[in-house]
Amino acid sequence: MIKTILLKNRPEGTPSMSDFEFISEESDLNIKEGELLLETTYVSVDPYLRGRMSAAKSYVPSFELNKPIQSGVIAKVIASKNKNFAVGDFVSGMLAWKTKQVSNGDGLLKVDGSKAPLSTYLGVLGMTGLTAYLGLEQIGKPKAGETLVVSGAAGAVGSVVGQIGKILGLTVIGIAGTDEKIEMLKNKFGFDAGINYNTSKDMNADIAKAAPNGVDIYFDNVGGPISDAVLFNINRFARMIICGAISVYNNKELPKSISVQPFLVKNSALMQGFIVSNYADKFPEAMKQLSTWLADGKLTYTETIVDGFDNIPQAFIDLFEGKNKGKMIVKI
Amino acid sequence: MIKTILLKNRPEGTPSMSDFEFISEESDLNIKEGELLLETTYVSVDPYLRGRMSAAKSYVPSFELNKPIQSGVIAKVIASKNKNFAVGDFVSGMLAWKTKQVSNGDGLLKVDGSKAPLSTYLGVLGMTGLTAYLGLEQIGKPKAGETLVVSGAAGAVGSVVGQIGKILGLTVIGIAGTDEKIEMLKNKFGFDAGINYNTSKDMNADIAKAAPNGVDIYFDNVGGPISDAVLFNINRFARMIICGAISVYNNKELPKSISVQPFLVKNSALMQGFIVSNYADKFPEAMKQLSTWLADGKLTYTETIVDGFDNIPQAFIDLFEGKNKGKMIVKI
Repeated sequence: MIKTILLKNRPEGTPSMSDFEFISEESDLNIKEGELLLETTYVSVDPYLRGRMSAAKSYVPSFELNKPIQSGVIAKVIASKNKNFAVGDFVSGMLAWKTKQVSNGDGLLKVDGSKAPLSTYLGVLGMTGLTAYLGLEQIGKPKAGETLVVSGAAGAVGSVVGQIGKILGLTVIGIAGTDEKIEMLKNKFGFDAGINYNTSKDMNADIAKAAPNGVDIYFDNVGGPISDAVLFNINRFARMIICGAISVYNNKELPKSISVQPFLVKNSALMQGFIVSNYADKFPEAMKQLSTWLADGKLTYTETIVDGFDNIPQAFIDLFEGKNKGKMIVKI
Repeated sequence: MIKTILLKNRPEGTPSMSDFEFISEESDLNIKEGELLLETTYVSVDPYLRGRMSAAKSYVPSFELNKPIQSGVIAKVIASKNKNFAVGDFVSGMLAWKTKQVSNGDGLLKVDGSKAPLSTYLGVLGMTGLTAYLGLEQIGKPKAGETLVVSGAAGAVGSVVGQIGKILGLTVIGIAGTDEKIEMLKNKFGFDAGINYNTSKDMNADIAKAAPNGVDIYFDNVGGPISDAVLFNINRFARMIICGAISVYNNKELPKSISVQPFLVKNSALMQGFIVSNYADKFPEAMKQLSTWLADGKLTYTETIVDGFDNIPQAFIDLFEGKNKGKMIVKI
């Protein structure tokens, strides 16, 4: 029995269970020369998938309706006619939301569960870690002593960004939505300060208080009013890495904010959209750095692991209510 | 008799004549060793001066109340005890709105009226030209064949930006506010297309039509709804030079716009605030290039010359209604 999750409708606003369809097939998957048969072990659910569910113009292609959704997956090789992969190997890649599937091996990377837990290859040693490291390095251009603010700080990317900021000698302030998350930022991830946007009465003032020298780098995962508040506190020559806008992904109408242009002119400041796939040539070097930091205990991570293939869509939906701490992963 | 214009009030909204005060003094200006006496010839009025009239936090210091306003000025040396300047020399510099003034020579640049008209040292060979050239080069990073959109295109900076764009092999589209200005963009400055934002019924669509391959570079002098419309048409890896926001300088409330962050993420696009004074190390090279293009007839310019010292404040106010074509200069 092979289970598959299809995109049934393009979500309007926040995705709901009715946007997804489960199908089960009795089927013998036969592999041809060069192919391998994969059994899914872990599935990554990520906010950016919301964009791929829309038909809107985007440089990440839209998912097709009534076809399987894809995301980062760790899978076990259970049969192989491909000389590069042996039965028992684990691989990571962009794969379908299926319990089993056939692949020709293209785009798959062997991962080693003895060096780090398999799930980390979807997180701190996968796209999440690469996004955090390369976004901060390539656009943020951090210099020791500067102040970094991270929104979505308790999320998968944000929690790694903050830790790398500390390794690089920055003052790091995280913004998140519960007191429990703020405690985690400070105690587990070593952030210097945290601001709970749900209980803050004046975000501008709270950021100013946490960043008395102003904000040099802003790693933005959320957009919306939180990002507006940061703008009031940026320094001259500030760099803002626009990595995501989870607060507005589900908006049906085009969101409005304060005009950023006067802030950019006044501060000679920079805002740049970041998509990790544009930096593929830097992945090997970045992976090496992240693995070293992880092995040295300088980098830690949090995962929210949900059990069971059938729970993939709900785990994805829960991202938009911030129910995850760190990387949200479904274990099959 | 020496006349001076002081800043009397910090303007609320659009500046008015009552924000300025004229004083006249009977006075013999005596110069000490090292000093020179200057008689004002041309005064530049520029939108950015509006920012200096406010008390708001800015890295350009605010003008003091009841003190003379300063801007770019061309003056004639009428007495000198400074060996670097002789009577009859013309100089450019940031000087007070006074008919005559004493200087120690610091920050003054000798200009040669036989090589180019004196007024051009406030315009195409002055801060205006440097802003156009360095903004486009340093942030826009233009590549031949790309599409450039310029807002405030008939203004001093915009008209030079568009011409440099053409020299560099770009497709250039200008946005301005009257049909007469659009004609000038196309016929005098060689823009490929122009859009009149006052008569356009759908700016998004008109930009899309004028830029069928999308917008790679946006040189933004205006901010506000015009810039919102450009965002809908940007290409992947677009660069937006945020040079000014004249459409909102006089707003009493913080202006709102569509959220730029989702557009930046989706397009891996960049927005950066530009202030020419940050690029002072590149002025000599830029001046050389601008002078060469001007001498070769590749660069032309338009000036709106207003006569008489007493008309300086009104000329400044008129900038915000777009009454100037090209550089607005007051001849004394």
